[in-house]
Amino acid sequence: MTEELKFGGHISRQFDEELDEIRSRVLKMGSLVEEQLEKTLTALREMSPASISGVSKLDRKVNKMEMKIDEECTQILAKRQPAAGDLRLIIATSKSVRDLERAGDEAEKVAHMVKRALENDTSPNLYKGLQDLVEQVEELLHATLDTYARMETRSAVHNMRLDQAVDAEYGRVIFRLVEIMKNDSDSVSDALDVMWAARSLERIGDHCINICENVIYLVEGEDVRHTKFKEIEDQLS
Amino acid sequence: MTEELKFGGHISRQFDEELDEIRSRVLKMGSLVEEQLEKTLTALREMSPASISGVSKLDRKVNKMEMKIDEECTQILAKRQPAAGDLRLIIATSKSVRDLERAGDEAEKVAHMVKRALENDTSPNLYKGLQDLVEQVEELLHATLDTYARMETRSAVHNMRLDQAVDAEYGRVIFRLVEIMKNDSDSVSDALDVMWAARSLERIGDHCINICENVIYLVEGEDVRHTKFKEIEDQLS
Repeated sequence: MTEELKFGGHISRQFDEELDEIRSRVLKMGSLVEEQLEKTLTALREMSPASISGVSKLDRKVNKMEMKIDEECTQILAKRQPAAGDLRLIIATSKSVRDLERAGDEAEKVAHMVKRALENDTSPNLYKGLQDLVEQVEELLHATLDTYARMETRSAVHNMRLDQAVDAEYGRVIFRLVEIMKNDSDSVSDALDVMWAARSLERIGDHCINICENVIYLVEGEDVRHTKFKEIEDQLS
Repeated sequence: MTEELKFGGHISRQFDEELDEIRSRVLKMGSLVEEQLEKTLTALREMSPASISGVSKLDRKVNKMEMKIDEECTQILAKRQPAAGDLRLIIATSKSVRDLERAGDEAEKVAHMVKRALENDTSPNLYKGLQDLVEQVEELLHATLDTYARMETRSAVHNMRLDQAVDAEYGRVIFRLVEIMKNDSDSVSDALDVMWAARSLERIGDHCINICENVIYLVEGEDVRHTKFKEIEDQLS
């Protein structure tokens, strides 16, 4: 079974360059989302909202990049009328940037929640569990961008495992917050705020998995959406 | 400014038929999501979970249709290499079915929550506010499918207003639930369940707006993502 897919080798060298350009833009866009998460993580570690300034600016950059890359994908479709593998690359890329853009939106929401919590002296007891979750999601996002860069499926399956760990951690965070809310009614609003942030982090994980599924589709030509994890693993091993 | 866009009139009559076929499939897919919401609404009105059986089956159909339509879009891109308007139609359609599929997932979540609430004798006080929200979201989804069917932008802008009403209603539901949770710690878990459902409904609204934005892009060639509502309105009026 094909493990890695190489693009390029087109008669038109310019076309190869265009495809390379798009791929490196996607990675750049992903690194901006990583940066958003990193700033939030720093704020949580240092218990200071200072590092969060600039997150919204990063998100606006992410949004602009999405539109730009999407536009370039459309232009390539119109101009080059690519077939087979190249066509799949363009489609998978266009879908992946949409997921990255949404991941960026969620990352921005998390950053704003952490900023509010730190500025309003919310009890750290409420949001301290978030730090592990942010770290795990950041790892998953990084691994996902790697998978996209290398276009290979083994790491895509590995990332699905990382996402299962994210989901488990998310479950623990929610469970803990519910217990706190039950025992301390004054904490309800603040705890809910943290809960929405946890939910956003879990969603970033889902967007990463969508991107991994796009890579599997791209490399294998198999659409694995709505396929159970175990079956994907069996199929690709 | 172009208000309505007509497709068709290609040299190949078969191509026209293929495009028509895809468009009617998208509408069929959307009507399945509507049906999911309608079953949930009936359950809420009759205070009985009976109508909810079958929602998961509908969602599996929606998922299958997404993959099928997406595959057809890819095949058309490969085979017909469409230019300009047709290319935009295919891209907008491929994006819209992804949004419809996600709307279906959210609708399934809502249905399951309502089923749990009705089966576990959750206090109706907690979920009664949900009925208006489901009705509003259903109206928005219906209007969105209409906009897609007619491919015109005036109704797309009108739908954005409907979505603002959905967001306001969502805010009221959440506010009420927070008050209940603060005053009755025993209700926390059940109230949270209703809150996630409300959040899912609000997300269905967001997916509708994405579809409307796709229609605007398709008709006007303008990418209005990340554009403020007021600006879109000014631009298209």
